[in-house]
Amino acid sequence: MTVMKKTTGRVTLPIEENFLKETKELMERWGADALRDSDGTTMEEEMKRLNAKIYTTYFVARGRNAFAEQHPEEMQQLYLMSTYHTAVDTELEVDFLQGYFTEQIEPDYRHDPKKWWEVIDRTTGKIIESSNWELNQDHDRLLVHDATPWHEYTVSFLAYMKWDPTQMYNHITNDWGDKPHDIPFDARQPHSNQFVKDYLQDWLKENPDTDVVRFTTFFYHFTLIFNNLGQEKFVDWFGYGASVSVAALKAFEQEKGYRLRPEDIVDQGYYNTAFRVPSKAYLDYIDFIQKFVAREVKKLVDIVHESDKEAMMFLGDNWIGTEPYGTYFKEMGMDAVVGSVGDGTTLRLISDIPNVTYTEGRFLPYFFPDTFYEGNDPVIEANENWLTARRALMRKPLDRIGYGGYPSLPYKFPQFIDYVEKVTDEFREIYSEIKDTKPYSGIKVAILNAWGKLRTWQTHIVAHGKSYKQTYSYYGIVEALSGAAADVTFISFDDVIEYGVPNDVDVIINAGDAGTAFSGGIRWKDERLVSAIREWVYHGGGFIGIGEPSAIHHQGRYFQLANVLGVDKELGYSLSTNKYVTETLDHHFITEDVTTYDFGEGSKYVYALSDETDIIEYSDGSIRLSTAPFGKGNGVYMAGLPYSHENTRLLMRAMFHAAGKEEAFNKWHASNIHCEVHAYPEIGKYVVMNNSSSRQETDVYDGSGSVHRMTLEPSEFIWEEIRDEG
Amino acid sequence: MTVMKKTTGRVTLPIEENFLKETKELMERWGADALRDSDGTTMEEEMKRLNAKIYTTYFVARGRNAFAEQHPEEMQQLYLMSTYHTAVDTELEVDFLQGYFTEQIEPDYRHDPKKWWEVIDRTTGKIIESSNWELNQDHDRLLVHDATPWHEYTVSFLAYMKWDPTQMYNHITNDWGDKPHDIPFDARQPHSNQFVKDYLQDWLKENPDTDVVRFTTFFYHFTLIFNNLGQEKFVDWFGYGASVSVAALKAFEQEKGYRLRPEDIVDQGYYNTAFRVPSKAYLDYIDFIQKFVAREVKKLVDIVHESDKEAMMFLGDNWIGTEPYGTYFKEMGMDAVVGSVGDGTTLRLISDIPNVTYTEGRFLPYFFPDTFYEGNDPVIEANENWLTARRALMRKPLDRIGYGGYPSLPYKFPQFIDYVEKVTDEFREIYSEIKDTKPYSGIKVAILNAWGKLRTWQTHIVAHGKSYKQTYSYYGIVEALSGAAADVTFISFDDVIEYGVPNDVDVIINAGDAGTAFSGGIRWKDERLVSAIREWVYHGGGFIGIGEPSAIHHQGRYFQLANVLGVDKELGYSLSTNKYVTETLDHHFITEDVTTYDFGEGSKYVYALSDETDIIEYSDGSIRLSTAPFGKGNGVYMAGLPYSHENTRLLMRAMFHAAGKEEAFNKWHASNIHCEVHAYPEIGKYVVMNNSSSRQETDVYDGSGSVHRMTLEPSEFIWEEIRDEG
Repeated sequence: MTVMKKTTGRVTLPIEENFLKETKELMERWGADALRDSDGTTMEEEMKRLNAKIYTTYFVARGRNAFAEQHPEEMQQLYLMSTYHTAVDTELEVDFLQGYFTEQIEPDYRHDPKKWWEVIDRTTGKIIESSNWELNQDHDRLLVHDATPWHEYTVSFLAYMKWDPTQMYNHITNDWGDKPHDIPFDARQPHSNQFVKDYLQDWLKENPDTDVVRFTTFFYHFTLIFNNLGQEKFVDWFGYGASVSVAALKAFEQEKGYRLRPEDIVDQGYYNTAFRVPSKAYLDYIDFIQKFVAREVKKLVDIVHESDKEAMMFLGDNWIGTEPYGTYFKEMGMDAVVGSVGDGTTLRLISDIPNVTYTEGRFLPYFFPDTFYEGNDPVIEANENWLTARRALMRKPLDRIGYGGYPSLPYKFPQFIDYVEKVTDEFREIYSEIKDTKPYSGIKVAILNAWGKLRTWQTHIVAHGKSYKQTYSYYGIVEALSGAAADVTFISFDDVIEYGVPNDVDVIINAGDAGTAFSGGIRWKDERLVSAIREWVYHGGGFIGIGEPSAIHHQGRYFQLANVLGVDKELGYSLSTNKYVTETLDHHFITEDVTTYDFGEGSKYVYALSDETDIIEYSDGSIRLSTAPFGKGNGVYMAGLPYSHENTRLLMRAMFHAAGKEEAFNKWHASNIHCEVHAYPEIGKYVVMNNSSSRQETDVYDGSGSVHRMTLEPSEFIWEEIRDEG
Repeated sequence: MTVMKKTTGRVTLPIEENFLKETKELMERWGADALRDSDGTTMEEEMKRLNAKIYTTYFVARGRNAFAEQHPEEMQQLYLMSTYHTAVDTELEVDFLQGYFTEQIEPDYRHDPKKWWEVIDRTTGKIIESSNWELNQDHDRLLVHDATPWHEYTVSFLAYMKWDPTQMYNHITNDWGDKPHDIPFDARQPHSNQFVKDYLQDWLKENPDTDVVRFTTFFYHFTLIFNNLGQEKFVDWFGYGASVSVAALKAFEQEKGYRLRPEDIVDQGYYNTAFRVPSKAYLDYIDFIQKFVAREVKKLVDIVHESDKEAMMFLGDNWIGTEPYGTYFKEMGMDAVVGSVGDGTTLRLISDIPNVTYTEGRFLPYFFPDTFYEGNDPVIEANENWLTARRALMRKPLDRIGYGGYPSLPYKFPQFIDYVEKVTDEFREIYSEIKDTKPYSGIKVAILNAWGKLRTWQTHIVAHGKSYKQTYSYYGIVEALSGAAADVTFISFDDVIEYGVPNDVDVIINAGDAGTAFSGGIRWKDERLVSAIREWVYHGGGFIGIGEPSAIHHQGRYFQLANVLGVDKELGYSLSTNKYVTETLDHHFITEDVTTYDFGEGSKYVYALSDETDIIEYSDGSIRLSTAPFGKGNGVYMAGLPYSHENTRLLMRAMFHAAGKEEAFNKWHASNIHCEVHAYPEIGKYVVMNNSSSRQETDVYDGSGSVHRMTLEPSEFIWEEIRDEG
């Protein structure tokens, strides 16, 4: 057992009014050195005088209706697509606002619709000449003339977004009644651009006690659109929808040399979600927005710095254009990023962010009544969250942690206060040990998809923190890796085409449903891509395909890397060809620790190309796990990988197998799947973690070839000295 | 209860040597009026003198090795595709025979491979110039020069088929040792063409006692290819593979005005199975073969008729080109078709064949030791087969039934002999009642796919009588309809485009996996097709989509008839769009008789477009059954429909609902799902069937609006007089 000394710092507490004494107590218990306000709280003067840094939430492009109302022409805009309307005659009236929330959306009649809108025949994909339609602005209807009966039509229209989506969400959810709607204004517009800088300067003067300006966030909210019933209709945490405007479109044309069509933005109604293989036009567009946002944010950060304060950004809400793994992020000069930590993946998403002085993670549970009510034990959620995140912390720690909500709520749960005291101490202990050292990784894996580095730790996310039936079987991969003893990098198809597979990569993972940006869809018809991967695997690389990897039907193959994987998927065209290789191996390195399989939603009808494929799991007429040699390398196929300790082990073994590194697998290793070993050779230490809430026994491989047995209490971790080898 | 009198006729018995007395007894018990030989039996003279018609099996294009060996250049041919070979260098050696059975396959080096073979870069789809490859005939290898490393290559080569597939199958299965291999010869070649006619003439003279020449069958076997281990590798009951030859390809060019590529036949290795949306070239090719086969068969039939005998064809084995629902079938002048009856669908496939004098169905079980062994009760299989087939018989009877195998085997099972006596009597009773009358149908349904009429009752079949995991959920549709009180027609996309939906059709069903010929794939991008169906439904038609109907991703839709169906399928591109309509109805006309749902393999992630869609069943995050209005018509979506009494009822109700004919649903009707009513207004009778092996009670709707309760013993059917209305 490690004996822990009481430490302080690196923890941020939310404040609450009339809670001074208790705040002091919590600060002491948890070692907090920073205080932050929340929505709806104001920091009292006495609070500001406590021995803590003061974070103050700051909104850039909303919450200033006095300004916004003077400049309705500078309201933020969106391109939206109407629902599909079937023509039953040659005249078709389209109620293009159908299904939209008129408290949020207002058609833009200010700019000539004939120039900025688009009517498309969705049966043929053809654009309807603007002379063939007209608008009835009084009734918000568009009339198509000379329509082809029985074809479907959509209208892509430019609209104003009258209500900030986060405030709208809170307003509606919390029933805020006639509280004014925050009008989002566009920093690209002249008055707004000046205003955001002037206002910040004034505000800084008025808030001398603030140490850290916590931007929540900058200019453009991720796409969040409500329906006519005031419910969420469309949500895309990565969506650039609200960054559109006539001004932006004109500037784009100037900068990139061509004009965008509305279709480049509405994208058949998919609005270029992160699951769509991005078009050239869309990649150009987000580059254009990122560049603009970085430039303008830099100006705000400079203003903050001139006041001797720090600039911190919240990773969410109006974060569009700031992508922390993007090309322009470093130019913003941000001091810190704070974000919400729901698991290991979201921790790494924050802790790996480059070009900032520090990162901070807001841990769960929020201090809200949905967790802190009589009869509930909030320690359970806190413990789960901590154990999941702690794995990732061992690989790359956050610099700070914090909590959100109203601290008076947990204050009524003494066991919770005790537990967080333990967590904050643990966090500081881990941080002090490993903050400047690199953990040992036995293997390096590259996640290959259409986004690559830009969306590091951000694969298969629709809305931050929300699980979808279509995503959990893939999201488990990054979650498993977030706390595993592996180096993880994210590479794009373009990277591979341009630069080849990086030299130090041992294994590539391509995972996702066919046609999505994560699997790759049409990109796999590029012979440069398939050739590069085949060559690399042939010379010893490992390729793991999960779900529908490299899938697009072309020239008799569905998986374009079927030759590497040794499997393909039956689409119904080759039922006439017998699939006679179905026998499974009795035993394989990959599954030595498996007790039960869980491939999540899996994938159907996957079959072996020949008996060179080793089938490890076959059920319900389909291969769920297999491996095949390809030259000196190996392909591994998995149907899916939801997160669990067992699947984490399965994936790690699959990686070492694929890379032909089986013998290195248990250099630093815990035999028990609920335990993990992280080694830090530079500081001569390793740690054995119990990632579970129950007592575990495990064999520990200590890096020297020796094995010893250890017992760990629930959640316990034990530091050991690395023995000199030989 | 109906009192049955002893009747005779319409039944064919297989014979066996040294079984004369028993054969007489069986003839009497079962009322048989025809005898037929089987593989490996010869009919004794005494047998021939019994009071029965004599059927004699006749092979046209095999079993004459004395001839075939003299004309190796007239052996049948195939186009085959090699496996995929990955180039790891600029030189690539392809072992194109890899995986083929050299006892069956021999490369054709007689015709210039540079002219007739094709090497394809499957990574790009490009043909390799024939100057860039050469053959090593001694080792059966093809060498590609200037290959692009890491691309995959295939060789499409012309081969001889040295062994008749059916004989090969029997030979290997029954371990016939050194028994000579039947060499198939090609009736398109000059010597063979003359020989088949001469031989038949001689044979007819030598077989004066034969009444019916039972052709088994004609020229070209369906595609059946074995692998290097002598196991089945490829089987396609519809496959035209073995009809290919240099002679055929030259004649095709002459007739159709363009030359076929090997790729038109090998089709990326799918060999144009019935599941592939047929290309123009392939449709031209099968038309060309059908025309040739019909013309040449006609000559043989004429020869048979000149001998005052009947010509009967077996629907199977070498049946390629004879498609009974094709354009040229009637020109063959065939007297009869006999085929194997495994269920209602295969019964209707035979009984509906037009342009023959009579049809005959061979019932199960075969008299083989796998059924007739001590301890097994063959009555169970016979009863199941009879009950399944009998439903279909009530809609369109066969003219004759029969059995196959060795009669000495069932002879040892007296209960089976009794049972078949009952079946043959039942058959004759039904036949005598309804043979010339049309059953009442309350509704007319069209099955819409790429094949239409040509493949009537032949949807979702890979190998006749074999069930596949990928097909049973769709095959259930035709099986349900085969014995239902509905008119069934099969129409193609081209029919709809050219002629529109036939006037008398109430409902269209489109069913299948995306991309297959049964769903339609690329055909749904044809605006004429979608427009025609939309218009027709809008004006009151019913459209039922099952599985992935009208599916191809295009312009933001996956189901191109999503507007008609009210549902679409999530591909992962629109996860950002909330699918908030998920509530199911408490009650719907379609599911009034449902107790449990079985959608088979189903389909995932199907969602409602709006709240205009009525969701009837929703589970595991997907709609499995729903309906939506479209104009005056309706769309119905189902995830799948494996065959069962319950699903038959579900489908019938869905049809009446979709067509807006709910009020007509129970005109003639049995409330119990295990029972059905068939009415024959022309003869003033209706019959109530118990399709199950247990006692059933049911309400019977008698066509006049009256309902009465009936009890039926297991398998019983009861005839009733139609009461005058009013």
